[in-house]
Amino acid sequence: MSQTYEKLQPYLDKSQALGAALALFSWDNETLAPKGALERTAKIMGTLSMELYNTIMNPEVRALLVELREADDLTAIEAKVVKDLWKQYEQMEKIPPEEYQEFSELSAQSGAIWAKAKQTNDYSVFAPTLAKVIEFNRKFAGYRAKEGQKLYDVLLDDFEEGFTMEKLDAFFGKLREEIVPLLKKITEKGQVVDKSFMRKEYPIAKQREFNQFLAEYIGFDFNIGVTGDAEHPFTNGLHNRDVRFTNHFHEDNLESAIFTTVHEGGHGIYEQGVSDEISETPLGGGASMGMHESQSRFYENIIGRSEAFWTPIYGKLVETFPEQLAEVDLDTFIKAINYAEASLIRTESDELTYCLHIMIRYEIEKRIMDGSVEVDELPQLWNQMYEEYLGVTPPTDAEGVLQDVHWSMGSFGYFPSYALGNAIASQLYNQMLKEMNVDELLLAGNLAQIKNWLKEHIHQYGQLKNTDEMLIATTGEPFNADYYVAYLKEKFTKVYGL
Amino acid sequence: MSQTYEKLQPYLDKSQALGAALALFSWDNETLAPKGALERTAKIMGTLSMELYNTIMNPEVRALLVELREADDLTAIEAKVVKDLWKQYEQMEKIPPEEYQEFSELSAQSGAIWAKAKQTNDYSVFAPTLAKVIEFNRKFAGYRAKEGQKLYDVLLDDFEEGFTMEKLDAFFGKLREEIVPLLKKITEKGQVVDKSFMRKEYPIAKQREFNQFLAEYIGFDFNIGVTGDAEHPFTNGLHNRDVRFTNHFHEDNLESAIFTTVHEGGHGIYEQGVSDEISETPLGGGASMGMHESQSRFYENIIGRSEAFWTPIYGKLVETFPEQLAEVDLDTFIKAINYAEASLIRTESDELTYCLHIMIRYEIEKRIMDGSVEVDELPQLWNQMYEEYLGVTPPTDAEGVLQDVHWSMGSFGYFPSYALGNAIASQLYNQMLKEMNVDELLLAGNLAQIKNWLKEHIHQYGQLKNTDEMLIATTGEPFNADYYVAYLKEKFTKVYGL
Repeated sequence: MSQTYEKLQPYLDKSQALGAALALFSWDNETLAPKGALERTAKIMGTLSMELYNTIMNPEVRALLVELREADDLTAIEAKVVKDLWKQYEQMEKIPPEEYQEFSELSAQSGAIWAKAKQTNDYSVFAPTLAKVIEFNRKFAGYRAKEGQKLYDVLLDDFEEGFTMEKLDAFFGKLREEIVPLLKKITEKGQVVDKSFMRKEYPIAKQREFNQFLAEYIGFDFNIGVTGDAEHPFTNGLHNRDVRFTNHFHEDNLESAIFTTVHEGGHGIYEQGVSDEISETPLGGGASMGMHESQSRFYENIIGRSEAFWTPIYGKLVETFPEQLAEVDLDTFIKAINYAEASLIRTESDELTYCLHIMIRYEIEKRIMDGSVEVDELPQLWNQMYEEYLGVTPPTDAEGVLQDVHWSMGSFGYFPSYALGNAIASQLYNQMLKEMNVDELLLAGNLAQIKNWLKEHIHQYGQLKNTDEMLIATTGEPFNADYYVAYLKEKFTKVYGL
Repeated sequence: MSQTYEKLQPYLDKSQALGAALALFSWDNETLAPKGALERTAKIMGTLSMELYNTIMNPEVRALLVELREADDLTAIEAKVVKDLWKQYEQMEKIPPEEYQEFSELSAQSGAIWAKAKQTNDYSVFAPTLAKVIEFNRKFAGYRAKEGQKLYDVLLDDFEEGFTMEKLDAFFGKLREEIVPLLKKITEKGQVVDKSFMRKEYPIAKQREFNQFLAEYIGFDFNIGVTGDAEHPFTNGLHNRDVRFTNHFHEDNLESAIFTTVHEGGHGIYEQGVSDEISETPLGGGASMGMHESQSRFYENIIGRSEAFWTPIYGKLVETFPEQLAEVDLDTFIKAINYAEASLIRTESDELTYCLHIMIRYEIEKRIMDGSVEVDELPQLWNQMYEEYLGVTPPTDAEGVLQDVHWSMGSFGYFPSYALGNAIASQLYNQMLKEMNVDELLLAGNLAQIKNWLKEHIHQYGQLKNTDEMLIATTGEPFNADYYVAYLKEKFTKVYGL
C-alpha cells in the first residue's frame, strides 16, 4: 500500500465505523426504538453525523488527498476512493459556507412545511419555501458548473455520473413516443382485470411465513441479512455482511408485501453481493441510485411478475392461503399482478405507467432549473402534463404536485434515477437472455445462477465502476433505452392482447 | 455554565454519542444481527471503542480537567463529572502504557482459554493464563494503591466506592454466622417442595404475553423502553429514554422468564428513572454495580417472590395457562418460588444461598490478592469452602472453580457487588416499610408508588451520588448488613416453619 494512502486509512476506518453506526440507528429508529427515545436519539445521531463529516472534511485529509491525486502507486480501488473523496471536496469548496449553512437551516424545516401543505392540500403553504429551495439549488449548481455546463446537468451528474439532459431527453423522448400511445390503446380497450381477490383477509403471520420463504427463494442470504417490520419499506446495510430490509404487512392486501419482498430483496442482494475488498472501503454501497433501482426493479418486475417465476411457487402460495386463493388459478394471478392503468400517485403506479410519472417530473425539473417556469405555475403545469400523458387530472394538489417529498429536500435530479433503474434492468436482462435461458432457470427454481450473473457483472464492484462502465463491460454498449421500451411494448402488448 | 466547562462539553457530547452507538451495537449483536456479520461488526465496534477512549483521554481534555478541578463555579453535576473523569486519568496514568498494552492483549485471549478449560473440564488449561491475569491485576493495583492501602481494597473501590475489606469482612462475617446455620437447619428439616409443575409445557407465545404484561405491571415504561430475545438476559440503555432488556424463553420452564422479567425489569426501571439532566451527562448510568443489582434484586426477590405481589395477578397467570396450573393454588406457587436448597452453580441458586456463593468468591479473592493462595490451589480451596458453607462438593472443576467468566477478564472485586446489591435492597426495603404499607400497595396492584419512591431516593441521581451517600440520605445510616440478614432469617424461618 502507498505510504500516503496508509495515512488515509485511519480516517476511512473511522468514517466507515461512524457510517455503520448511523445506519444501525436508522434501522433501529424505524423498526424498534421506543417512541419516547426519538428526540434524544436524534441529537446523538446529529453528533455522529457531524463527526462523520469532520472525519473526512478536514485539513489533514485534504492534504493527503492532494498528494494522493498525484500518486502513481495506487490500486484501482484506492484511486477510485481518492477520486470520489476529492469530488466531495471540490463540490463543498465551491459553495460559500455561510450560504450552505443557510440552506441547511432551510432544509431542516422544509420537509415539515411540505408535509403540512400536503396534509391540508394547500400548495400556497409550501410555495414560498419551495421557491427558496429552488433558488439555493440553482445558485449552488451555478457555483459548481463547469464552463458552459447547464445547471440541471450539474445536478443530474450528482445522481448518475455522465447522464446529461442530452441523454435523458433521448430516453424520455422514446418513452413519450412509444409508451404514451401504448397506454392510450390499453385504456381504450377497457379490459378490466378482477383483482379483488388480492384484498381478501390474509392473516399477517401467514404472509410473514410466505415472504420469509420468498426472500430466501430469490437469493437474499439470511446468514448475512435480516428483515424487519417498518411503516415504510426500505433496505439498508451496515456492510456487505449485514444487510437489512423491512416490509409492511397489511392484512387486507396480499400483493403489497410480496412485491416489497422482491423489490427490497433485490436491493439487499445487491448490497450482499459487494466484494469484501470493496465493502471495507468507502465504495461499499451500490454504484448509483439508478443502478440500485435497476436491481430492485429487475427482481420486482422482470422476474417477480413473470409467469415462469411463479409457476414453481404459486402452489406454495395457494397452500399458504387455501381458502382465499381457492378459485384463483395461476393465469388469473399473473394477469392481476401485471395490470396496467393510468393513475395519479407515482408510488402506487404499475410497471407500465411508472416511467411516465417520472417523465413528467423530469420535464418539470428541467424547466425549473432553466427558469422557464415559476413556482406558482407548477400545479397547473403538473396537472396539464398528467392529463396529456396519463389521461388523468389530479383533483387536488395533494394528489398532484404535492405528492412527493423530494423537492422539499432539494433533491432535484433524483427522480430520473427511478426510470433509469428500470431501463438499466431491461438492458441487463436483454444481455442475460443471450447467455442463459432465464425462463428455464425460473421454471426450475434455480435463481442462484441469475444472482451469480448479477454479482459477477454488477454487485461485486460496489462503487468502483460507474453505470456506463459496467453496462459497456457487460452488454457491449453504454446505456440504451431501446431495450426498456421494447420490453414494455412486448410485455404489455401480449398481456392485453393488442 | 463555566466557560471552561463549556469547552469540555463537545467532548462529553461526542463520548455520549459513541457510547450510545456501542450500546446499540451490543444490543443488536445479541438480539438481531445476522451471524455472518459478527466479525466485521466487531472491527467496527473496535474502531468506535478506540475513538471513545481517545475522545476522553487526550491532552486537550486533560488540560481542561486540570483547570476545572480548581474551578469554583461548577454545579454539583459538573463537579462530579470532572471528579470522575479525573479519576480515570489518575488510574490510567499510574499504569505504564506498555504493561497495559500487554494486559489488553492477554485479556483479548483469556476469555476463550477459560471457556475451553470449562468446556473440557480441565483447570490446567486455564491455570497459567489465570496466573498471568492475577499478576497483572496485583501489579496494577500496586501502582494505583495509596500509601498503606491493600491491593484488594484498591480493586474493591473500583466497583463500590468506599467499600473496603474492613466493611466487607463484617458483612460476609454476619452472613457466615447467621445464614450458614440457617441453611443447615433447612437442609436438616428435609422439607421437599414439589416444583414439577414449573417444568410442564408452557407455549412461548403465551409466556411472552404474560411477561409483557408483567414488565408493564411492575412499572417498566414501554414508551421509553423495549424488550427482545437473547441467549442470555441483560439490560442496556442508550440513554434514559431508550432502555432495553432481553429475556430467554424456555418452553419447559415457567419461572425462568418470569424472574428474568422482574430482575431485568428492575434494572430497566432504574435506568429509565435517571433524570434528564443527569442522563445527558456521563453520570447517566446507575451509581454502581451494587446499587444496580439492588434494584433488580428488589424487584426480583423482595417484591417478586412475595405473596402480596402475586395475590392480585396470580389469577391472570392461571388464566394464561389454565391447564398447566389447574391444580396449583397460590400458596403452592409461592412455596415453589421461595424454595431454598444448597447447590453448586451461583447463577442458578436461590435467594437464600446466593449470598454464600458470593461469600466464597470474596474469601478466595482476598487470598489471591494478599498472595496467600497459589493458582494451583484454587480448585481445592473452592471445593473445601463449598463443602464447609453449602454442604455440597463440586464433582468437577467445570461446576466448581471454572464456572464463572469474571476472573478470566481480570474482574477481581466485582463479585461482592452481587451480594451488596441484595443487602442494599433490604436496607432500602426496611426504610420503605416505615414510610408506606408495601403489602397493601402490592395487594392493590399499585406499584407506581413503590417505583416513585425508588426514583425519588435513588434512580433520579444516576451516578451523581455514591451508594453510601444515597443510603445515608434515604435511610439515615450508611450501608448496614443487618437488614439483609434479618430479612433472610425472617423470611426463610417463616417459609420453612422453623
